[in-house]
Amino acid sequence: MTVAPPLNPPVRTLMGPGPSDIHPRVLEALGKNTVGHLDPYYLSLMDDVQRMLRELFRTQNELTMAISATGSAGMEATVVNLIEPDDKMVVCVNGVFGGRMADVAERAGAKVVRAERPWGEVFNVEDLRSVLAKERPKVVGIVMAETSTGASQPIEEISKLVHEHDALLLVDAVTSLGGIPVEVDGWQIDAIYSGSQKCLSCPPGLAPISFSPRAMEVIKSRKTKVRSWYLDVSMLASYWGSDRAYHHTAPINMSYGLYEALRLIHGEGLENCYARHQLNHVALASGLEQLGILYAAQEGHRLPMLNAVKIPDGIDDAQIRRELLQRFGIEIGGGLGAFKGKVWRIGLMGYAARSGNVLLFLGALEQLLAEQGHKFQHGAGVAAANAVYLDQP
Amino acid sequence: MTVAPPLNPPVRTLMGPGPSDIHPRVLEALGKNTVGHLDPYYLSLMDDVQRMLRELFRTQNELTMAISATGSAGMEATVVNLIEPDDKMVVCVNGVFGGRMADVAERAGAKVVRAERPWGEVFNVEDLRSVLAKERPKVVGIVMAETSTGASQPIEEISKLVHEHDALLLVDAVTSLGGIPVEVDGWQIDAIYSGSQKCLSCPPGLAPISFSPRAMEVIKSRKTKVRSWYLDVSMLASYWGSDRAYHHTAPINMSYGLYEALRLIHGEGLENCYARHQLNHVALASGLEQLGILYAAQEGHRLPMLNAVKIPDGIDDAQIRRELLQRFGIEIGGGLGAFKGKVWRIGLMGYAARSGNVLLFLGALEQLLAEQGHKFQHGAGVAAANAVYLDQP
Repeated sequence: MTVAPPLNPPVRTLMGPGPSDIHPRVLEALGKNTVGHLDPYYLSLMDDVQRMLRELFRTQNELTMAISATGSAGMEATVVNLIEPDDKMVVCVNGVFGGRMADVAERAGAKVVRAERPWGEVFNVEDLRSVLAKERPKVVGIVMAETSTGASQPIEEISKLVHEHDALLLVDAVTSLGGIPVEVDGWQIDAIYSGSQKCLSCPPGLAPISFSPRAMEVIKSRKTKVRSWYLDVSMLASYWGSDRAYHHTAPINMSYGLYEALRLIHGEGLENCYARHQLNHVALASGLEQLGILYAAQEGHRLPMLNAVKIPDGIDDAQIRRELLQRFGIEIGGGLGAFKGKVWRIGLMGYAARSGNVLLFLGALEQLLAEQGHKFQHGAGVAAANAVYLDQP
Repeated sequence: MTVAPPLNPPVRTLMGPGPSDIHPRVLEALGKNTVGHLDPYYLSLMDDVQRMLRELFRTQNELTMAISATGSAGMEATVVNLIEPDDKMVVCVNGVFGGRMADVAERAGAKVVRAERPWGEVFNVEDLRSVLAKERPKVVGIVMAETSTGASQPIEEISKLVHEHDALLLVDAVTSLGGIPVEVDGWQIDAIYSGSQKCLSCPPGLAPISFSPRAMEVIKSRKTKVRSWYLDVSMLASYWGSDRAYHHTAPINMSYGLYEALRLIHGEGLENCYARHQLNHVALASGLEQLGILYAAQEGHRLPMLNAVKIPDGIDDAQIRRELLQRFGIEIGGGLGAFKGKVWRIGLMGYAARSGNVLLFLGALEQLLAEQGHKFQHGAGVAAANAVYLDQP
């Protein structure tokens, strides 16, 4: 056969919905020499990963680890461990990822009740009170940062409601973790999952998860085996815990990447990291406003790291994204599902959340919008973003 | 919090049951700049990965791809897509991984019938004929290279028997792929999975899989949804195929590693690669024989890449493995399950299958065995291995 050409990926600025820009230290970590999955060094690294993940999730949960697969497998892991056939689960759906969670739960055997809100809006306590009172679910699932709409879902009040109804709260933190505060213990979240490729500046391939002691009690008293062997957290806990019982062969080099990513985030400090995401979001939003571009998500509930904005009338979505990629090496995301062709998704996640990216993107977008005849004051986008940065102490 | 120490993995020679030594070109590939999972470059890389995997599996199967998780998830992927609740599956169990497959299948809802053989032995057609005639299963699962015992299972004759009984043949090729011939089309295998971390010289994290057109027909006519959303190959096929429909965020950098690993194996040539594994196995076996060390697997059915050998009487298993690691940086595997404490598993997989590793290991083992008072002619192990290499044209 003809051997494929040498590996030569183009240099990209990753400002889509993820993967985000990878920190150079993380890329370097990925290529370090591999050790075995039961090597004393690797076991010690796992301990450090767990410790740093607990700090990131703001939890004392013993069962805090990384699933050896991407964020969607994290979703599946939390669902399949909590759900037994015919258990009732309420899933809050206001975008693609809530819809996915409902599908995952049905496959796990749950009787799923979908609570729905329009795309771009968030759920409040009153939306859910009657549903929970009527359905009395075992588990309530909700997406904290809906990557398809850019909406930021408050969790704390809903958690109180869920626990008043004796249900377990399952939270999708794929896009939120590392970019905005996630308080697992403070908000009494029972199961949570994330992905390595968003605000952690690490390539896709690992899914941090955490289960509360209450969730672990439910798992321990299951009447049926978890439907997935690969994602059975009781077995995974024996490998991550002091038993070190072999389960599967852990993805060593991806773990190096996550380890370095966690070192970076804790080196910066969580509060500084959240502030950086917020600052760059405000700068981007100020710039976009000058270009006449509006946000898709409900006001007051916009994610800093995932800016879903409406494509202006008369602008060719595909052409803009293609030219951004080909001429500037910038990747942004198109719309998914109901937002397909209507929305751009501009990520400022992790290492991508920096002023250089914001200015580059706004400058490039100004050029492309001008080419398509869009009316705005040239230079105003970049100037508005810079005004935000200049205003910082 | 205290930030964890800088990443600094020790240098190891990986001669256990996997991960095996990673080729330096693969390590370099892992750290290349990340692109998006829908980037034209990445889509083209996926095409090349599929093409190279088909060549490696020796198949024309359209559905040939890598699952975004480790080899055990490859097992789960093949099982859950073929099995619907109450389907009957015969699983051949003669080691840990056959047992695991039975567990996975039960969780998928299968009525599992275990066909058993003693550890270290293989199945022949007569072992299975009456079971298949009686049970009439939908699927028969078998492990080609049982990593817990080092036994090499012939597939072709059993495949004929399975198809005479109108069942689908599911094969575990985690350890075999790349080290011994795997003929998916030639042997009419319906579903097969492997792992990146064995004879492909790539870190763990991806699971190559392939399904025959016959298997795909069965999947298309399912009455129930696949229990795993993450591993549903119909959806995965839409991403890997021409639709490029978003499913999950692919593990970009791990794919770089697999791509480079596949380029290496096809650059060497499959036949050369198999011959290299065999040569180093013969050299190792000759050396071990001089040290009075016997194989655990049935004669005539010993895997070249996974040498499971009996620990000599009076030798301290844990101490030998600890000293190999601490003094020489060599990792070998201990026994699993029924073979715990009784067997060492010496891997010669992929990049680890080279003469330098064989000589280093035999030399180190001679030193440690001598320290524990084991009787043998000093130098004889290394000399015997060298005699094999010297005898090569």
